[in-house]
Amino acid sequence: MKSTFGNHVTVSIFGESHGQTIGCVVDGLAPGIRLDLDYLRAEMEKRKAFGRISTARQEKDEVEIVSGFFNGYTTGTPLCMLIHNQVQHSKDYEATRYKARPSHADYTAQVKYLGYQDYRGGGHFSGRITAPVVAAGAICRQILAQKGIHIGSHLVQCKNVYEDPFSQDVQVLTEQIHMMNRKRFAALSEDKEKEMTAVIEQAAQEGDSVGGVLETAVIGVPAGIGEPFFQSVESEISHLLFSIPAIKGVEFGIGFAFADLFGSEANDPFRMDAAGKVITTTNHNGGINGGITNGMPIVLRSVVKPTASIYKTQQTIDMQTMENTELNIVGRHDPAIVHRARVVVDAMVAIALVDLFADRYGYLWMREETCVSD
Amino acid sequence: MKSTFGNHVTVSIFGESHGQTIGCVVDGLAPGIRLDLDYLRAEMEKRKAFGRISTARQEKDEVEIVSGFFNGYTTGTPLCMLIHNQVQHSKDYEATRYKARPSHADYTAQVKYLGYQDYRGGGHFSGRITAPVVAAGAICRQILAQKGIHIGSHLVQCKNVYEDPFSQDVQVLTEQIHMMNRKRFAALSEDKEKEMTAVIEQAAQEGDSVGGVLETAVIGVPAGIGEPFFQSVESEISHLLFSIPAIKGVEFGIGFAFADLFGSEANDPFRMDAAGKVITTTNHNGGINGGITNGMPIVLRSVVKPTASIYKTQQTIDMQTMENTELNIVGRHDPAIVHRARVVVDAMVAIALVDLFADRYGYLWMREETCVSD
Amino acid sequence: MKSTFGNHVTVSIFGESHGQTIGCVVDGLAPGIRLDLDYLRAEMEKRKAFGRISTARQEKDEVEIVSGFFNGYTTGTPLCMLIHNQVQHSKDYEATRYKARPSHADYTAQVKYLGYQDYRGGGHFSGRITAPVVAAGAICRQILAQKGIHIGSHLVQCKNVYEDPFSQDVQVLTEQIHMMNRKRFAALSEDKEKEMTAVIEQAAQEGDSVGGVLETAVIGVPAGIGEPFFQSVESEISHLLFSIPAIKGVEFGIGFAFADLFGSEANDPFRMDAAGKVITTTNHNGGINGGITNGMPIVLRSVVKPTASIYKTQQTIDMQTMENTELNIVGRHDPAIVHRARVVVDAMVAIALVDLFADRYGYLWMREETCVSD
Amino acid sequence: MKSTFGNHVTVSIFGESHGQTIGCVVDGLAPGIRLDLDYLRAEMEKRKAFGRISTARQEKDEVEIVSGFFNGYTTGTPLCMLIHNQVQHSKDYEATRYKARPSHADYTAQVKYLGYQDYRGGGHFSGRITAPVVAAGAICRQILAQKGIHIGSHLVQCKNVYEDPFSQDVQVLTEQIHMMNRKRFAALSEDKEKEMTAVIEQAAQEGDSVGGVLETAVIGVPAGIGEPFFQSVESEISHLLFSIPAIKGVEFGIGFAFADLFGSEANDPFRMDAAGKVITTTNHNGGINGGITNGMPIVLRSVVKPTASIYKTQQTIDMQTMENTELNIVGRHDPAIVHRARVVVDAMVAIALVDLFADRYGYLWMREETCVSD
Repeated sequence: MKSTFGNHVTVSIFGESHGQTIGCVVDGLAPGIRLDLDYLRAEMEKRKAFGRISTARQEKDEVEIVSGFFNGYTTGTPLCMLIHNQVQHSKDYEATRYKARPSHADYTAQVKYLGYQDYRGGGHFSGRITAPVVAAGAICRQILAQKGIHIGSHLVQCKNVYEDPFSQDVQVLTEQIHMMNRKRFAALSEDKEKEMTAVIEQAAQEGDSVGGVLETAVIGVPAGIGEPFFQSVESEISHLLFSIPAIKGVEFGIGFAFADLFGSEANDPFRMDAAGKVITTTNHNGGINGGITNGMPIVLRSVVKPTASIYKTQQTIDMQTMENTELNIVGRHDPAIVHRARVVVDAMVAIALVDLFADRYGYLWMREETCVSD
Repeated sequence: MKSTFGNHVTVSIFGESHGQTIGCVVDGLAPGIRLDLDYLRAEMEKRKAFGRISTARQEKDEVEIVSGFFNGYTTGTPLCMLIHNQVQHSKDYEATRYKARPSHADYTAQVKYLGYQDYRGGGHFSGRITAPVVAAGAICRQILAQKGIHIGSHLVQCKNVYEDPFSQDVQVLTEQIHMMNRKRFAALSEDKEKEMTAVIEQAAQEGDSVGGVLETAVIGVPAGIGEPFFQSVESEISHLLFSIPAIKGVEFGIGFAFADLFGSEANDPFRMDAAGKVITTTNHNGGINGGITNGMPIVLRSVVKPTASIYKTQQTIDMQTMENTELNIVGRHDPAIVHRARVVVDAMVAIALVDLFADRYGYLWMREETCVSD
Repeated sequence: MKSTFGNHVTVSIFGESHGQTIGCVVDGLAPGIRLDLDYLRAEMEKRKAFGRISTARQEKDEVEIVSGFFNGYTTGTPLCMLIHNQVQHSKDYEATRYKARPSHADYTAQVKYLGYQDYRGGGHFSGRITAPVVAAGAICRQILAQKGIHIGSHLVQCKNVYEDPFSQDVQVLTEQIHMMNRKRFAALSEDKEKEMTAVIEQAAQEGDSVGGVLETAVIGVPAGIGEPFFQSVESEISHLLFSIPAIKGVEFGIGFAFADLFGSEANDPFRMDAAGKVITTTNHNGGINGGITNGMPIVLRSVVKPTASIYKTQQTIDMQTMENTELNIVGRHDPAIVHRARVVVDAMVAIALVDLFADRYGYLWMREETCVSD
Repeated sequence: MKSTFGNHVTVSIFGESHGQTIGCVVDGLAPGIRLDLDYLRAEMEKRKAFGRISTARQEKDEVEIVSGFFNGYTTGTPLCMLIHNQVQHSKDYEATRYKARPSHADYTAQVKYLGYQDYRGGGHFSGRITAPVVAAGAICRQILAQKGIHIGSHLVQCKNVYEDPFSQDVQVLTEQIHMMNRKRFAALSEDKEKEMTAVIEQAAQEGDSVGGVLETAVIGVPAGIGEPFFQSVESEISHLLFSIPAIKGVEFGIGFAFADLFGSEANDPFRMDAAGKVITTTNHNGGINGGITNGMPIVLRSVVKPTASIYKTQQTIDMQTMENTELNIVGRHDPAIVHRARVVVDAMVAIALVDLFADRYGYLWMREETCVSD
């Protein structure tokens, strides 16, 4: 299974940046899930380019559901969503076709696909292919939301601008998640949004690019989801996150900070809370012990590297002549992708979780109205 | 597929820490691979507990290959390896059976398996279950070595002791990898080995534990292996690494350090080297672009948290009475697992790569004697 | 994986009879396969309804390839094909919506999908969903044909009209297969075509339906493809054939006739032929021993039941009131499906074989121009 | 996945006829299933050779459960079962090692495994490898039995001796199934058992072999299990049955007899029964419509060819010299396998059904004590 993920709910994606149509097939959904198409549109909107901090390519990204959906509900058969590309500027790519963009997939695609790849706009490697991922994620997020499970991400770092992590207080965290899901630029504070936006705009002006770190939290997940080998919650989520172009690191809980702690500092003590629920007084493990959820919020961070396509002159090779050369790209590119990747990360986490939930409770769980987190 | 990984070469594992036998099945191997059982034994040896920096449980870990192996060669049918447990002290676990060890899987296992799990010695969650992973990895490493592909890891951090990363020079890196594979404790320098050992021993004396960061490098991998969605090299490797108990973060290349760089600093320029091979002058991306290998060394880091089982008194809950309580564990536990996890990480990376290679070249590739990296 | 088949080359299908668009995604194809779109159209043509022996619903079945195909060649990324439904008469299904057609999937769909299924025209259960299967099969058949592997089927029985089986002589068989692939109605002789057509037309006039048996042969498959457990050639092919609506039996070689033979009669003696190739002097096993091809033609038969939708009054239940009732259907239905199912069977066999070949030789095998059967 | 089957509950098998140990891993079982080891032993007993109608090789077939089982219950982690071979006569195979037994897998194994296969006793192709299948089936049958789902098979044909099919009356059928599960030789009547036994003994005396047809029925399966594409109940069951050595045909309901019926004769009318349950007045479709169960008994037939290993002189080739030769086998072989294959068929059907049920209801369904068929 190359372009498909999942054991119970599966997502297959297809398409190229400048092809006619991109899309995905979501299979294994329960019948009878009411879908809110406005929510789907809102999710698509959050992924869109906007302002001076994004590419000038403005796609409408209208999602057509062509199967598996009838009278407002999922049918239980494969749900296919199509998005038609509309504003391709393919000729931008002709002149530099054989000049491999450093840190982009041009060279690896050339080797892997033996020169037959659709090179226009990055083809199948384009960030554009994350649009159907967001559409699939929007379906999964609706399913989770009905169960009281909510996902949100914010930029905890953008270049050298740092924002405080999510709150440790579940009540406050819940509000933060909901706020992030309403915002176009996912900073917790207005000040940080301005600073980060300024950093990106500055990079754009200089023909350069920047990256950042996303922090993601999930509330409402009950204990008992996931597997020790080889389907740990961390395995499933990281598998999907590392399919997002530009993500180069993923950590759960305090992640790499574990390395400098003693066990006595790192361990999360269990306690009974006032309501009789098992909690941990710290959440260094990010809600996961032994690959399985423990009922605390899932917390993870992923790093998004600076966009590989920059306007500054770069050294590279010509893949036709196999000689050294210089590259000056044209075309429309994002000076940063981290703020748009945010909704893709949320989508991927939702896809992983719905698959894990379906394993635990059966796929008909998706349509039940009871809240699993009770 | 819960306990099985792989699309072409699959590894299934089974067993519990105090069960009779643990093991794995490796399927999809080519026929005619000559196996060096001394190499297999040497790999098993590297995972074993030793000295004061490990648990007192000393298992022989003799591997019996009971199928798929005939007259010194793989047959091409499923290869099953068994390891018989011999020195279980199960009674150590009775007194604290219902007291959930903080940051361990006791509580999540109780919820997931509804109380039916084998709780003795951590059961299926024990680090002991990584023994068959190392055995499977030893098969895969032999296959890769015949093609000139070598994997090695060292402790780039153990608590507050830091060692320099692997060399950027491929020649030097090759020597470092081979040296690590001969050593029991994977530090590049003798000094750092002493310092790290001292830190672990100190923690052991205090009834505490420490963690660390492993840096892993792979040389000899040709360009063109991996998939953009959803089987990127990063996805496959991280999926497996996050199945190793205690690993909480994985990053490729410079990983989280990408967040503070401009694209113009981060991008790895392509060049033709003197031998006519495509290289990059830096390797910030750790040998992977767009999920696909680019021919440079694969470089990644994974963080291993401090062992959850410590001898200090901890706060926790009693899972039978659902009340707060204190835990004072007995039994035999590792004051650090990071130095033993090293060979498990190597094994997992080998498993992921053999699977990806088999996808690219077909499974009969495994037995060919030609070197793919030429 | 519910709606996806394959380990190396995977086919996912989606769509409903009266939905907007049906289609499939074929993943795992090698890059650089030249596709002949005229051949694709010709295959689609063979599945179409025609004459008085088929439904009156006449769909154009134009296939749009929207991804994975660039400048005449496959790219190696997922290839998505779309077919837009055009002549739905959905109101035909309103009056009898809750009356379960005997032997059709109306009742089982109602139970499985909890009433949320798209019931119009049989929805996802319609024979219409085999159109994308034929499209996927047309891709696979082109790949096989380049290697000298050819598939053909004929009606060895239609109601009480029987035709001689394929020739045992490979030379003659080859001609028969090519002839079948040019014909719209797959009878070896003109006489039998007339007789079979007459039987179907007679059933149509009476508002009834008939079925039949298809014999399928594949030439050019080398020895060594398939697996003993659980991916035998018979397992893979039967898995796909039993997904075709109306197929209720599959046998390989002489199939059920084995039951009345002694081993000494049934066994196929091996011999070296004049060209130094291993053959068997009989082919009772249909080219497969122990789940693996032996180099002889693959021969199999599948039975297609009479179309469930007939115009005669039938006894059934009302799924809303849960009471007994009578059913008089309207709408457009085939008096026989066996002659149209022929090309679907060919497609399914092609899909299974390409997947098995890719396992054996790696997916890049698909694009090589050398003939595997040499 | 070559040697693994299943999406939710997976069975992996390994081993060779004359290897040290054969076995299987069953993964995806719910925790808390109480296993009756006497039942397991009784199932193994039914597969054993006995009397003059079977091979002289008498294995004890004691099953060791080494993981996933604790204090009488499944734990929910992978359950591994081992069977140690004890009475191999490997030297019987040396003299004829390169002489390919007609209709056996010797030649295809030689090609597929490039000569590295374990050829002793048929290696991985031996009927012996069905012993772990029966063990896995015994687990699955216990799960199903708790839900009121029972499987049974009988020999509806053995060479030229025919027995009446199972009763159409569910009450009588239930008794027949239970009777078959108590009997060693699965004939419904004592007379037929004698006649069939005599036919097999006669073939044994002549150094020949015979085959037959098994009819299998399953009662208690509710409507709504299975998928239209590509996981139809027929697809899943046939996939597994065609992995059993010697099975060459599978049909559901009246199978190939559909070909000579009009739709008006073939269709199964729906009715409400006295208890308010939906039934069909005939069961030509064998309990499956559109790939999904309809609540009627599942009925299927599979043909088992005569054992390929016969003592009569046969024409074949020498795989070393690639010349024509004659074969006179020694060793211990079954004059018929159909009566022993019966319990393997039951096991395979059970495995397929548990997997399909787990998909529908989630894997925790396995442990619930309520009866799904109510």
